[in-house]
Amino acid sequence: MTVKAYGAHAADKPLESLDITRRAPGPHDVQIDIAFCGVCHSDLHTVRAEWAGTLFPCVPGHEIVGRVASVGAHVTDFKAGDLVGVGCMVDSCQHCADCDDGLENYCDGMVGTYNGATADAPGHTLGGYSEQIVVHERFVLRVSHSADQLAAVAPLLCAGITTWSPLRHWNAGPGKRVGIVGIGGLGHMGIKLARAMGAHVVAFTTSESKRADALALGAHEVIVSRDAEAMASQTKSLDLIVNTVAAPHDLDAFLNLLKRDATMVLVGAPATPHPSPQVFNLITKRRAIAGSMIGGIPETQEMLDFCAEHNIVADIEMIRADEINAAYERMLKGDVKYRFVIDNATLAA
Amino acid sequence: MTVKAYGAHAADKPLESLDITRRAPGPHDVQIDIAFCGVCHSDLHTVRAEWAGTLFPCVPGHEIVGRVASVGAHVTDFKAGDLVGVGCMVDSCQHCADCDDGLENYCDGMVGTYNGATADAPGHTLGGYSEQIVVHERFVLRVSHSADQLAAVAPLLCAGITTWSPLRHWNAGPGKRVGIVGIGGLGHMGIKLARAMGAHVVAFTTSESKRADALALGAHEVIVSRDAEAMASQTKSLDLIVNTVAAPHDLDAFLNLLKRDATMVLVGAPATPHPSPQVFNLITKRRAIAGSMIGGIPETQEMLDFCAEHNIVADIEMIRADEINAAYERMLKGDVKYRFVIDNATLAA
Ligand SMILES: [Zn+2]
Ligand SMILES: [Zn+2]
Ligand SMILES: [Zn+2]
Ligand SMILES: [Zn+2]
Repeated sequence: MTVKAYGAHAADKPLESLDITRRAPGPHDVQIDIAFCGVCHSDLHTVRAEWAGTLFPCVPGHEIVGRVASVGAHVTDFKAGDLVGVGCMVDSCQHCADCDDGLENYCDGMVGTYNGATADAPGHTLGGYSEQIVVHERFVLRVSHSADQLAAVAPLLCAGITTWSPLRHWNAGPGKRVGIVGIGGLGHMGIKLARAMGAHVVAFTTSESKRADALALGAHEVIVSRDAEAMASQTKSLDLIVNTVAAPHDLDAFLNLLKRDATMVLVGAPATPHPSPQVFNLITKRRAIAGSMIGGIPETQEMLDFCAEHNIVADIEMIRADEINAAYERMLKGDVKYRFVIDNATLAA
Repeated sequence: MTVKAYGAHAADKPLESLDITRRAPGPHDVQIDIAFCGVCHSDLHTVRAEWAGTLFPCVPGHEIVGRVASVGAHVTDFKAGDLVGVGCMVDSCQHCADCDDGLENYCDGMVGTYNGATADAPGHTLGGYSEQIVVHERFVLRVSHSADQLAAVAPLLCAGITTWSPLRHWNAGPGKRVGIVGIGGLGHMGIKLARAMGAHVVAFTTSESKRADALALGAHEVIVSRDAEAMASQTKSLDLIVNTVAAPHDLDAFLNLLKRDATMVLVGAPATPHPSPQVFNLITKRRAIAGSMIGGIPETQEMLDFCAEHNIVADIEMIRADEINAAYERMLKGDVKYRFVIDNATLAA
């Protein structure tokens, strides 16, 4: 089946309208009419081949929401018309320890929603900047928000779960002081989620201009990280930091804010390394630096259900598909509050 | 009271015989006749002022064992003649959360056994290269090894607890594969302790020549870290790594050997930073790099009791006090198996 999509034929070409094919749904597949797709920094890095291994044509997009069009014969959890989502992966080995633990995101056989290995044409997966997608039922999420919230749900599938997973794994909640570093697509979700979980939330930004917004998002305190005195006021006060900043920066300034036995979790990988953190700051308080990558399917469902219950969605700016190249340029400048979302109905235009 | 000691008057002077004074024991003090004192790399770094803040005269030594000479009026847990030990600290604030948790080593008011703040002359603490020491009862450990093992017990007070604490905190034990990086004073204790805890122990060394020794110490496997193929054979196989190497080195080579959710604990702080570790290696398996510094008093007692029960001591080379300067030079070349211990009876000579 041929559908309209938006993607690039080469790293140095802009994204444009493409026709792609989707497989006929197998017995365990869910065929989804995509309504909206969020725009993630990974989309831009991949389509511009800033990371190794981009295959073309490249159709990005892994913050996918829509309605079920049809389901395979063995699918029992979904039916036509259901609101659903698809995140950063569409398959995994489904039998390793990671998969058994519901952490398919850490499976060595995890298949990304775009640029992943597949038998389908053209030999690599094509993402959510398209009218339809066909996905194994295991990687389809139920969306229980109201239909009019659907566009703003899309970013939960990557930005939401990427911050939710470390917040849950490292026990953010009542009585805990949680730092969120960076107030962008990931950070704005981190603030909302940590606040709703009951934690005391301290947002860190390089920009005084983001103070009011961070407070509006739910931060109890906002610290401008260039202000040494304000930073010092938080010394040894935080139980957890989720650091969403991928650009290389001084990790020590944040490590010093952790209590004994506390962890700073990095959720972004910089293109060039961070300055090497001081081991002294780790050993003197038994602190840790950890990494976390998106999240597993069960925890993604848990996050979506939590967000529906707490009426949490992303703050978005809707765009037409043909505005994506301009949106990337604005995203590079941090000029978006806080996530672009493509209205996939515009793909047919 | 004046006692003989061995120490230095300046960073560029060799250690020599000194007379120092010890305070009269207060009601909560234990006066200890020191029998033996282990020689730690920290002793050398401090006495040569390679770290900031060394105060002179400097008497190093924080792997102290001996017999109780007398106790203060309120001391009930110790009596004259008891075998005891003193490790890296002789006081702390005794009322913060760290102290309440028995982790006095992380207390901001922790007082090092040497070069720490004290009201006693000469205004900073003087360590175990001396005939006697007077220590608050909270910081005195019971030694239940046999008296003839006493010299080899000394290194447990720093090298032993420094590796025991992370092994226990990160749950080394049966069914766990534990890596120990570096086979020196710390590493040789790490191998012995992890083995006795029931873990599968993989020792890492840069030197093929240490293979037989590492196996004799208790390692199940020995990997020469310069052998890329041997390193690759351990990929994603370890539940915990205790990395004892303070010299700057490639942390990524070891991070890749950790399973999902596993931690590499650094117990040495390099003088110049390690090459910055790749965040990618952390996020793709939710791995962590942590630090750990010696251990608290309750866990030090637990370690000593465990070692007595399992007949574990350090491998040592005994020296006279006047051999300490030569011993430092050999220690810098890694020419010791695996810890020098001073026979403090030679201080009187
Ligand atoms: Zn993403
Ligand atoms: Zn798997
Ligand atoms: Zn030491
Ligand atoms: Zn304290």
